[in-house]
Amino acid sequence: MHALVYTGTETLVYREEKNPILKNGESIIKVKASGICGSDMHAYHGKDERRIPPLILGHEVSGTVDEGKFKGKEVVLNPLITCGHCDYCSSNREHLCERRIILGISKPMEKQGSFAELVSIPDKNIYELPKGLDIKEAPIAEPTAVALHAVDLGESVLSKPINECKVLVIGGGAIGLLCGLIVSKIKKAEEIVIVDPNKKRLNVCSKYLKADPVHPNSPKIINNSFDIVFDTVGLEITRQDAIEAVKPGGTIIHIGLTQPSGQFDFRKATLQEITLIGTYCYTNKDFEKTLDILSNKKIGSLDWIEFRDLKNGADAFKEIHNGSCSAPKIILLPWKLNNNLTQPTFVIRIFL
Amino acid sequence: MHALVYTGTETLVYREEKNPILKNGESIIKVKASGICGSDMHAYHGKDERRIPPLILGHEVSGTVDEGKFKGKEVVLNPLITCGHCDYCSSNREHLCERRIILGISKPMEKQGSFAELVSIPDKNIYELPKGLDIKEAPIAEPTAVALHAVDLGESVLSKPINECKVLVIGGGAIGLLCGLIVSKIKKAEEIVIVDPNKKRLNVCSKYLKADPVHPNSPKIINNSFDIVFDTVGLEITRQDAIEAVKPGGTIIHIGLTQPSGQFDFRKATLQEITLIGTYCYTNKDFEKTLDILSNKKIGSLDWIEFRDLKNGADAFKEIHNGSCSAPKIILLPWKLNNNLTQPTFVIRIFL
Repeated sequence: MHALVYTGTETLVYREEKNPILKNGESIIKVKASGICGSDMHAYHGKDERRIPPLILGHEVSGTVDEGKFKGKEVVLNPLITCGHCDYCSSNREHLCERRIILGISKPMEKQGSFAELVSIPDKNIYELPKGLDIKEAPIAEPTAVALHAVDLGESVLSKPINECKVLVIGGGAIGLLCGLIVSKIKKAEEIVIVDPNKKRLNVCSKYLKADPVHPNSPKIINNSFDIVFDTVGLEITRQDAIEAVKPGGTIIHIGLTQPSGQFDFRKATLQEITLIGTYCYTNKDFEKTLDILSNKKIGSLDWIEFRDLKNGADAFKEIHNGSCSAPKIILLPWKLNNNLTQPTFVIRIFL
Repeated sequence: MHALVYTGTETLVYREEKNPILKNGESIIKVKASGICGSDMHAYHGKDERRIPPLILGHEVSGTVDEGKFKGKEVVLNPLITCGHCDYCSSNREHLCERRIILGISKPMEKQGSFAELVSIPDKNIYELPKGLDIKEAPIAEPTAVALHAVDLGESVLSKPINECKVLVIGGGAIGLLCGLIVSKIKKAEEIVIVDPNKKRLNVCSKYLKADPVHPNSPKIINNSFDIVFDTVGLEITRQDAIEAVKPGGTIIHIGLTQPSGQFDFRKATLQEITLIGTYCYTNKDFEKTLDILSNKKIGSLDWIEFRDLKNGADAFKEIHNGSCSAPKIILLPWKLNNNLTQPTFVIRIFL
């Protein structure tokens, strides 16, 4: 099969790789679409110790079952492979499973990712593509589940209904935009500020999200004024912005992980009773809820997604890296669309 | 009146000071007992920007009403003076009131503290000494309310009942011991580890608290094993210990504030979904619950408190500072006990 292989820092090579082998309880998926995640970028920058080259990255994925139980079905994959019987797995917190493996990761066990024509996955991680969700857009289910989990986690500790809250979203990437869309369209919050230094990205976000799109220096980011702050970037500076912006008694949801450690103002966190929650991935229930959300178009149009051929994936990584890309999400397509994607609505969309 | 005045870094002078003036809506309290808090120590070290010398410190206090509405009554004071009508005050989160003032603090408004023979306080901050609580021990109500608030806050975000949790308490001072006692005797947790480098203190704690008392290097502090960690110290190193010890999906309650900022492992906090909650003070309801707890001796004997004359208060501060003091709490007594404290049970106890 062809695959986009991460071979070293800032290097991706589109080349021939061995096909995945069908194992018991698993299926082989013909990948139709696979999104580039912030964590893939992190690996690309050589900063993710869990992703060691050579490795096929990618874990946001839709496709058709090529071999296995559900052969021929159009599917979306939950890339989080968990043990199924530890305390976490038994209490609906599968994302905390100590033996969790993710597609496109090297540790704790290597599992090749979905920037390829084929990928293997346990059957229990396969979900049927729900009606109303375009197979090409379906990889967005994964980051949407991340955002949904983050928003729900934040909501669970707020002292007032989230729709009455003033919300700050730091970062206009996919996770930031998705948190914003969920908070706005599903949770019905009306006071949302989204902040990003990249004007082009902000413009895209503001087309789809009812929020104040601002630059990090904007006077609209008033200190001590936000009930909840989503830091989808995770830099020392964004954490500083988050703790400054959050209101006494408020909540910071820490989703991004660009800088893994750094200084933090524990004085304010303590004296003002700030709750900081780190969040990563989602539960199986979150993933199911997400498919329902997307199937019913509850977060609106997904036209903010950009599509590229997998073979040109290295260029997409470069553009995200140098900030010349305005789309909050790029999805890579491994097969020639007109040959391999059969949904008529889809074929029409390609030529628009 | 006589008072112990903080006149500069590591300097306290017992001297004559002006009596407080009776204002409308306030009372003058004849202080019978006043505890030394970690935050007083922080001021003593010249590290609390809200406590500027010269200032009478002290905010854990019991006494009798000398002038005012409840004249003659034995009372305990809630030293947290709030505005009473902001959003926080109206929603039972008075401790977050932006205009909050604490006894023995310089900012946002100077209010002389209780290391003195007399102190003034708004009437709404005065609680009658409950039956069963010794007036000499009653200042412990304040740190007990702090600990109760912290434990309840932690409990509210746990994914399982707190009595089934493995609990780590960092710090064997009053707040650490009180958190431990509440978690053990009220919340019925059975797996508690309390850690402090001061062996003498640990010995005192272990007499009263059913917990494993250990040194910070102990192998009993297993990484990723505690459901909830109370950091009652708030040093960079204790925060590091806390994040290492806490289990995936677990909670850190940050109560101490020795180092106001510092590095933190946001990588683990994010990948393992750790909740960190800063906590400070307590609500009015917490204070009332605490009086009930103490009145009904729900946290057991308070014999771990040590008493000193206020005039020798400077020595007590020195002993706490240099670690030669084993008591988790020292309470200062401004009046000669046999002349001024009339409760018979109390007089008996003095001579025990």
